Amino acid sequence: MNDFSKGAAWIQGHVIPISDAAIPVTDWGVTHSDIAYDVVPVWQGGFFRLDNYVTRFMASVAALRMDISIDASGVKAALTEMVATSGLRDSYVAMVAARGQNPVSGSRDPRDCNNHFYAWCVPYVHIVKPEVADRGTSVWVAKHICRIPANSVDPTVKNYHWGDFTGGMFEAKDHGFETVLLLDHLGNVTEGPGFNIFAVFGDRVVTADLGVLHGITRRTVLEMATEAGLAVETRPLPLEEFLEADEVFLSSSGGGVIPVARVDDRVFSNGVAGPVAMGLRVRYFDWITRAEHRTEISY
Amino acid sequence: MNDFSKGAAWIQGHVIPISDAAIPVTDWGVTHSDIAYDVVPVWQGGFFRLDNYVTRFMASVAALRMDISIDASGVKAALTEMVATSGLRDSYVAMVAARGQNPVSGSRDPRDCNNHFYAWCVPYVHIVKPEVADRGTSVWVAKHICRIPANSVDPTVKNYHWGDFTGGMFEAKDHGFETVLLLDHLGNVTEGPGFNIFAVFGDRVVTADLGVLHGITRRTVLEMATEAGLAVETRPLPLEEFLEADEVFLSSSGGGVIPVARVDDRVFSNGVAGPVAMGLRVRYFDWITRAEHRTEISY
Repeated sequence: MNDFSKGAAWIQGHVIPISDAAIPVTDWGVTHSDIAYDVVPVWQGGFFRLDNYVTRFMASVAALRMDISIDASGVKAALTEMVATSGLRDSYVAMVAARGQNPVSGSRDPRDCNNHFYAWCVPYVHIVKPEVADRGTSVWVAKHICRIPANSVDPTVKNYHWGDFTGGMFEAKDHGFETVLLLDHLGNVTEGPGFNIFAVFGDRVVTADLGVLHGITRRTVLEMATEAGLAVETRPLPLEEFLEADEVFLSSSGGGVIPVARVDDRVFSNGVAGPVAMGLRVRYFDWITRAEHRTEISY
Repeated sequence: MNDFSKGAAWIQGHVIPISDAAIPVTDWGVTHSDIAYDVVPVWQGGFFRLDNYVTRFMASVAALRMDISIDASGVKAALTEMVATSGLRDSYVAMVAARGQNPVSGSRDPRDCNNHFYAWCVPYVHIVKPEVADRGTSVWVAKHICRIPANSVDPTVKNYHWGDFTGGMFEAKDHGFETVLLLDHLGNVTEGPGFNIFAVFGDRVVTADLGVLHGITRRTVLEMATEAGLAVETRPLPLEEFLEADEVFLSSSGGGVIPVARVDDRVFSNGVAGPVAMGLRVRYFDWITRAEHRTEISY
């Protein structure tokens, strides 16, 4: 019997234990980080907004001009088979398109590569531990590193170019913070490793529009905020304005809505999770159980 | 008997055929492109400037704050054993440091990861085919994509964040060009996929100083140019000035000095390889056979 307790992968039509899942060291997915990916959460035995995630994934694949020989319904079938086989009822599920190896000796032409699809799943990941999120996490604003600009690598095409995030995470950890926020080259708030970020001003919720991933959880937050009677604004958000917010929170498919109690030395909502953020956090864990957003898995 | 005709890899102390060399799909080297690497050429059975390449690699590893449990002499021993086993006498030899997997469930802290070293080699790669280089290649200046800025991802730490290069390569191929040159956000010439770029003005050779890899072949070119009685300048090089050069050429450990006959619709040196570039090209293939630069391999 295979051990799927740590996760599973779908590679070339086979579901295998995650510990056996590997990619060749000469795949452009490694050597050029030439990959589009997406992550859909599975919660209590069902995918959340599966169509939205897979649609975005296929758009990323098209943007990178890859032909992965599988369509949206095939991707959904692969993910379903993989998660069902794993037995994981709460899972972080990654779908990946890689440029592949170049079979033409010495060719540097991306069009020669054999593009391919694979997927993998592991137990659900909270990008911030739930007990930390519940009391409000801490965010460091990177001082030495800016977010990779959209005209270098398009952040709406979900990708593994995380060098800026990882450098920022070292800065954050050096200063005792949980995670990091990057600014763009103009000093506007962008995003952090695995999350979008929001500011609350009274009954208005504001998040960046450009230079960031258009997260599905971000979109869920905007919809939930509207449902909750809040106004939403997507626009450039300068750091100075951001730091004057009443509340700050993160959104991620790895944990939903994550309240923030501190950004650098600025304390928000008296150093605890703010009421608007906590309301949205609770609402998110309700939304992901609503039938209209779910695709149940037969294990 | 293992088949090493397509290359070999050194992983965890073992030399294996390149076709068996893989990295876990959950390694941060894949999921965060969290990798430092370097490439040293082997030519006619010997490494060229091995110390310089390995020194730069170890500096990259330190810059990314990785502990790969192997020092410079260990890296050299691993590369030597691997190439000798492969039997390749002309080879592209990659050394790689990857962040590794995070053994702490759900941890997003880069300090928790198990960093590791591996290496691989394949038959020598010319980034431009020699017969194309000999008559002068063609370079497209990317119109829609800028080089990732140094304050997002440091280009002097050799890395696999190639999304800007690959996007640029598609632009170049769409327009029938061999390769692509990226500009920085100020319109200065930077570099392309796997090469630095030079402009020749009379007896002066100019190349960018900031926002580019400090290539070992770039350094070799600057030394060879000095030996040849040319003046060298490393400084910002605006595209407008670059396009007024008498000659243009590329430098890469994958092919040495590569003359350029065309940039966009601008023809250089009457559409053939220019005399200064060809002189340096010939000199490079002399330099890589000089004993003082070489580390011979016992096969």
